[in-house]
Order: sequence, then C-alpha cells, then structure tokens
Amino acid sequence: MSRTLVEELRAGLPEEAVLTDPDVTASYAHDMASFCEAGTPAAVVLPRTVEQVQHVLRTAHRLRVPVVPQGARTGLSGAANTTEGCIALSLTRMDRILEINPVDRVAVVEPGVVNAVLSRAVAEHGLYYPPDPSSWESCTIGGNIGTASGGLCCVKYGVTAEYVLGLDVVLADGRLLTTGRRTAKGVAGYDLTRLFVGSEGSLGVVVRAVLALKPQPPQQLVLAAEFASTAAACDAVCRITEAGHVPSLLELMDRTTVRAVNAMARMGLPESTEALLLAAFDTPDPAADLAAVGGLCEAAGATGVVPAEDRAESELLLQARRLSLTALEAVKGTTMIDDVCVPRSRLADLLAGVDRIAAEYDLTIGVCAHAGDGNTHPTVCFDAADPDEARRARESFDAIMALGLELGGTITGEHGVGVLKKDWLARELGPVGVEIHHAVKSALDPLNLLNPGKVL
Amino acid sequence: MSRTLVEELRAGLPEEAVLTDPDVTASYAHDMASFCEAGTPAAVVLPRTVEQVQHVLRTAHRLRVPVVPQGARTGLSGAANTTEGCIALSLTRMDRILEINPVDRVAVVEPGVVNAVLSRAVAEHGLYYPPDPSSWESCTIGGNIGTASGGLCCVKYGVTAEYVLGLDVVLADGRLLTTGRRTAKGVAGYDLTRLFVGSEGSLGVVVRAVLALKPQPPQQLVLAAEFASTAAACDAVCRITEAGHVPSLLELMDRTTVRAVNAMARMGLPESTEALLLAAFDTPDPAADLAAVGGLCEAAGATGVVPAEDRAESELLLQARRLSLTALEAVKGTTMIDDVCVPRSRLADLLAGVDRIAAEYDLTIGVCAHAGDGNTHPTVCFDAADPDEARRARESFDAIMALGLELGGTITGEHGVGVLKKDWLARELGPVGVEIHHAVKSALDPLNLLNPGKVL
Repeated sequence: MSRTLVEELRAGLPEEAVLTDPDVTASYAHDMASFCEAGTPAAVVLPRTVEQVQHVLRTAHRLRVPVVPQGARTGLSGAANTTEGCIALSLTRMDRILEINPVDRVAVVEPGVVNAVLSRAVAEHGLYYPPDPSSWESCTIGGNIGTASGGLCCVKYGVTAEYVLGLDVVLADGRLLTTGRRTAKGVAGYDLTRLFVGSEGSLGVVVRAVLALKPQPPQQLVLAAEFASTAAACDAVCRITEAGHVPSLLELMDRTTVRAVNAMARMGLPESTEALLLAAFDTPDPAADLAAVGGLCEAAGATGVVPAEDRAESELLLQARRLSLTALEAVKGTTMIDDVCVPRSRLADLLAGVDRIAAEYDLTIGVCAHAGDGNTHPTVCFDAADPDEARRARESFDAIMALGLELGGTITGEHGVGVLKKDWLARELGPVGVEIHHAVKSALDPLNLLNPGKVL
Repeated sequence: MSRTLVEELRAGLPEEAVLTDPDVTASYAHDMASFCEAGTPAAVVLPRTVEQVQHVLRTAHRLRVPVVPQGARTGLSGAANTTEGCIALSLTRMDRILEINPVDRVAVVEPGVVNAVLSRAVAEHGLYYPPDPSSWESCTIGGNIGTASGGLCCVKYGVTAEYVLGLDVVLADGRLLTTGRRTAKGVAGYDLTRLFVGSEGSLGVVVRAVLALKPQPPQQLVLAAEFASTAAACDAVCRITEAGHVPSLLELMDRTTVRAVNAMARMGLPESTEALLLAAFDTPDPAADLAAVGGLCEAAGATGVVPAEDRAESELLLQARRLSLTALEAVKGTTMIDDVCVPRSRLADLLAGVDRIAAEYDLTIGVCAHAGDGNTHPTVCFDAADPDEARRARESFDAIMALGLELGGTITGEHGVGVLKKDWLARELGPVGVEIHHAVKSALDPLNLLNPGKVL
C-alpha cells in the first residue's frame, strides 16, 4: 500500500517533491517537543503549488492515509510530529510573498514564508507585522497560523489570529476553500478564518493567507526593574495595567532564568534579584512613559529601575529575554515548557504556586513570562536520562497546568495543544466543549485524516 | 400544538415571561429592516436566567419549534425578524453587568446589557469598550455579538469580534457550552468564540460574555475637510493611511448626505461640497496629528480644512455624521442601506460606481462611509408606496453589492446578512464556502431550529 501511495503521490508532484529515504523522512518526524511521541512517515511531500497540495490531499483521501501538515517544525507541543505511516506535508517550499499593499495595509503570502522574512519585507514599506514568536527567524507564517502563535509584542499588538484576514485552505478531500476577506472589516457568514487559525492543521491545510499590517511604530525603548520578590514584580504589572499604560512589551524573568542567561551569555544581569521586569514603549515619547512606569515599579517595591539609554541597550535587554528558554535548556539538558496563561490579577498566585511545585517535586523550574498578558512559561529543567527525574518533571508540568486552570486561566496561551496537552484540553473544555469540538472536526474532516491524534 | 408549546414554555418560566397576546407579539416581529419578510411568532419569551433560556431551547427542541433570538431589534438586515410559528426569544431582560475588572481589563455581562450602559459603566473605571454602532444608546451587547457590529471607532479599535474573549452559549438542544477564556491570550482548542460571534443566533444563544476592555484614551479632536469630488476625498483617505496615521475616526459624507443632514437639523454643513471628510485623533497630541492630516487633505485637493477648536465643536461634527442615516430616511420616507466594504484602495471606484448606479436607476443614493475602513453605506432613498421606485431601489441595492464584490470587497462590513443578503452571501462565499457553512450549521444545529432561514 505504501508503494501505491508513493506512486500515486508522484503522479501529481515533481520527482524531488516526494521523499521516501527513511534517513531523510525521519528528520521530519519531530517538532521542538522532541520528547513527545512520533511515528515514521510513509513519505514526506514538499509541494510548491496549491494544485500540488490538492493532489496530495485527494490522494490521501482516496487511500485513507493521514496527513500531518508541517511548517518549520519549531512548535513546542508536538503538533507537527508525524504519525506512523502518514504523509508529512511540508509547506516550506511555498514561500512566496505574493503582495504587500501599503494603502490596504495587507500582505498576501504563501504558508512557507518565514516570519522574519515577512517582517523585514513589510518594514521596507514602512509597515509592521507584529507577531514575533521567539523562533521568528525560522518559523513560518503557516505554522504561526496553525498554532495561533504569540510573542513579545502581544501585550500591545495581540497574537497571530488578530492579523489573519482571510485564508485559502485545502480541505481534507482536496476541495479548495476561500475564507474571510482582504478588507478591513467584513461579517459575511461564519468566521471560518478564525476556525482554522490555531486548529493545528486538523481542519484543513492553509495554502495562502491575507494578513493585516500596521504602520511601523517608533523604535521602542526598554526599562529594566529589579524586585526582591516575584510578588512585588507582579504587583508592578497590575499597577501598570490599572494606570492605563499600554507598553509594547512587559516581560518577567525570575531568578532562575536570570542566572541561566548570565551563565550562558555573561549578560551581566543582576544575579541577586528575585525577579526582573522588562517594560518597553514604542510611543511618541517612550522616555516619558518609561519614567511613569518606573515610578509605578518603585511604588511596588522595585529595588532598582534602569531605563535603557538608547536602542543598543534596549536591544541587549531584549536579547537576554529571548535567550531565556535556550539558557534554561542548558541547566539540565532537557526542558518541558509550560504555557499557562492566567488573568493578570492572578499572576502572583501562579508564580508562588510554581515555587511550591518546584519544591514539592525537588526540581529546578525557571519562569519567564509575557507578564503583561499573564502568559507564563514555567520551564521544568530535568535530566532526561534520569527516569525518576523525568517522571517528576512530567508530574510537575501537569501540576502547573492544574494550578493555571484553578486560577481561572488556560493551559496554553500561545504554544497550542499538539500531543503534549491533549488530555488537559479536555479538562479545560469540559464535556460539552469536547462534544462540540468533535462535531466541528467531523464536519470538516469526517474521515479524521488531518493531523489525527492532535488537539483532540 | 401551539397550545402545548405555550403550556410547556410556562412550565419553566414565570407568568410574565411568556407573551402570547397577538398585538404584543406582533411588535416583536421585526428589526429595523422593516421591509424584510417576517412571520407571526407563536410566543415571545423573556427569560431572566441561563436556566430559563435552557428550558426554552429544550422545549423548542422537543417540540421542533424554531427559535429566533432577539436583542433590541435595531439590526438592519432582518436577522431578528420572526418566522411563522416560532418562539421569539428576547434576551433584553438578562441585562446585568456581572463584573468590571480594571486589572484584568475585562467585563462580564449578560446579553441584554445596552451598549451605552456598558460603555458608561466601564468609563467610571477609566476603561473603554470601543464598539459603537450608531444604535449604541439602545442596542444590546448580545445583538452586537450576534451581528459582530462595528461603528465609528473601528478604524482604530476594530469591531465587536475583537472584544469578545469568551462566551456562555445555550445550544440548540439546551446544552450549555462555555467557550474561550478571560485571559489576555489563549489557544486551547478551536476558536469557537469567534464562530458564534456574527452567526446571527443561528448556531446558539449567547447568555454571558467576557469582554476585553481598553484603557480610556484621551478625548478625541475632530477635523472636517471639504472636497470638490468624492475621488479627491478618497485620495486623501489613501494618503492618510499610506503615511502611517491611525486616526480614531475617518468618516466620509457625500453631498446628498450633507444636504439631508442640513435639511433635518440645520447643522450648517457646507452645502456646496461634494464630499466631507471627518478625521479624528485620540492621541496624546491630537492637534499635531490633525495638522499633519489636514496637510495631506490639502495635498489631495481639499477646498477647505477646518479643525474643531474644542470638544464641543468635535461633538457637533460627530453628531452630524451620526444623523446621516436618519436624515437620508427623511428624503423619501424609506431607505435600503447597503453595507459594502471594499479594500481602501478601491473606495473611489466604489463611490464613482454608486453615482453611475444612482443615475442608471434614476434614484437618490446618499453615501456615508467609515472611509478609513473602506466600509460604505450607500443608502437608497425611495418611496415604498411607489412599486416601480421600490423595484428600482431593490435592483440598485443589488447592483451596489455586485460592484462591491467586483472590487474585491464584501457585501457586508458590519450589518450582517439576515434575510436581506442571503442570496448574496452564497455568491460571496462560493460553492465550497456554502457547503462548509452548511456543514458547520448542521454540526451545531442538526434540526435547523435556531433562526432558520437567516444567513444561509
């Protein structure tokens, strides 16, 4: 059957677009959640056109073979991990920017365009594509749409979902669906666009996207504030929000994270601080806004407030933040990265709870957070070669999600469900939510061929 | 059967919550699209609790009776018009604001809360709920969610959809579904929240909403610019956008609209102008921003640029804009209001086309527009008692939608589909789009009991 599959795939794809060498296909088995299960794909296909994607889906539909859509596989939840005998459908070669229009403030792109490539291309027109996941130099727009990615900018500019106006989607049986619009507004029918955004390739394969752009804002200026406790830092976040400020970035690094970053990159961050808060403004007068926010940090008990002098200093602080996950990975070799988002008012409770959980399971858990959004990344550092530590890591990872739900939050603010959080999704959605998810999945993919075993 | 229906409804609702007097129920038959068809409801129900709504839906499901959810019935597309023998389910008595939280920047409300009531309540906390449809003094949040309403603020702040974080929805069979979140971010599962927003009560009945709030911006300052042609005014809109400005309002009134407003309210607007553009900023220095925009208007050929001196003058200009539809209604007694939204770059083409259509059908068609969004309201003025004029009105109304689609736009930017634009929706969605809409509708409402005959 696998032979038939490959022959039939080749009938509508160029020679070099169908890979079957096991050594090669194995390299497409995983996204960044390497510890999550993955099967061996029967083939990897790399189409360049919408018609080729339709051919792949029609073939898969006829032969009842599951399809796992993939971007750059930088995801953190295993959503792009292959299942045994599937077709791995990589969209990375559909990487053309089809249009950038400064009057309509839209870009039209293929799914394989790399986030940073698009960001730089629109910047040349004085425009701004805000979503900036930390993998932005390699992740693709298609992947960003699949997982509804966030980033540092979200506190002011929102997530990927808010920038997707319309889509072309190849459905499970190969039909081509166009959703949404390229206009600023539009309410014609159900919002199918948003249904596909964040569905992790389980409802259809995005082959084209119309994206909304913003005008390029002024360069942001960053401030760093040190606190003697995470509670005080969270109090500052609440004060900043309550006072009506809209920073372009509001990030938190706890002591474990600060030390890990220093250890990796000698950044000279304050080793003795319990929590470092980074705030930025891209307003007409960022220095004035930072001064106001600095005052609020001091009122919340900041032990030091240091505004960046210029763009270079600002960039250095951001680099430290962006290094956090890599630095935490170096602590023990492996990490499990939680993505719990809680209401801003419960941020302090979450961080206190993570401390308790780390002590209870005798583990190092560093926390970096998009604090302004209440979106935290408690990162469990463990030695994968130590079975007991690995077990405790998984248990603590779960305990943090349980705490997030208890505090009125969600198990995933921006990383998605994949295979990593499937069981937890059911818990968050509740029985009726799960029923409706299955009803929607069946309506769009009745044979369960698209990324089966993910999300639901 | 109708007797059984009423008895069964009364079994779970207070006496005064079930209305059957035909004179009373008739008054619930229509929204503002009075010329659209409407049947006589078997009963009007006015529940006060989620459980009562569930009782209504369970009863309707058991007896196979259609249900038409209603807010304040200020909609413009007949989405709330009753069908023969249905239950009109008015949510207006579920009108409690359950929570306003300035740290989490959310409000939790029942669906019957009036938009302006919520806006004023959050303003007391220094917060801002942007969506401001022109009916904001009477329309309800539930209705706004059902139609994904817009307003004057959208050019900067977006539409209702962007402010709905989570929902409680009673499904067609009475099950209670909770969607979304109260956190700033969240990607747990499919975006069911957005699926319900704008679905015009055809997928479920919203009984509670978690809404995102913004900090209250500075008071906006308005500028009026006169142009000798709509083309020049549209050119100004494009220049303003391309230069990277983000006005809090960018509205256009054509000569017909300006004269109608003067005739109704003696506003003293410039009678001889072909197009009046209103721009506003709620930035830290609105006067500076208005000066820049005024310059761009002059570069586009404005014959006069008049910035408002203060808040009172600004308010007067906005009043003139808000009066537009009412004033156009007075021209001939009846209006059909189009809601075509085109890419900003095609705005001038749309306005030129509307002029041609008005001439071709020998009708008065006034245009007011949320110009910054490309969202226009060409308003056909006609005498409903003149059958030939009424026929021409409908034909010209359709011709404008055809033109909108030709220009890459949508048939509805913010008013929804209802019964008025059902046929046109199919044209905009295309065959695959229609199939997927039906699949989604069947998944959520397999017996087609929720607002049947609307949207699809």
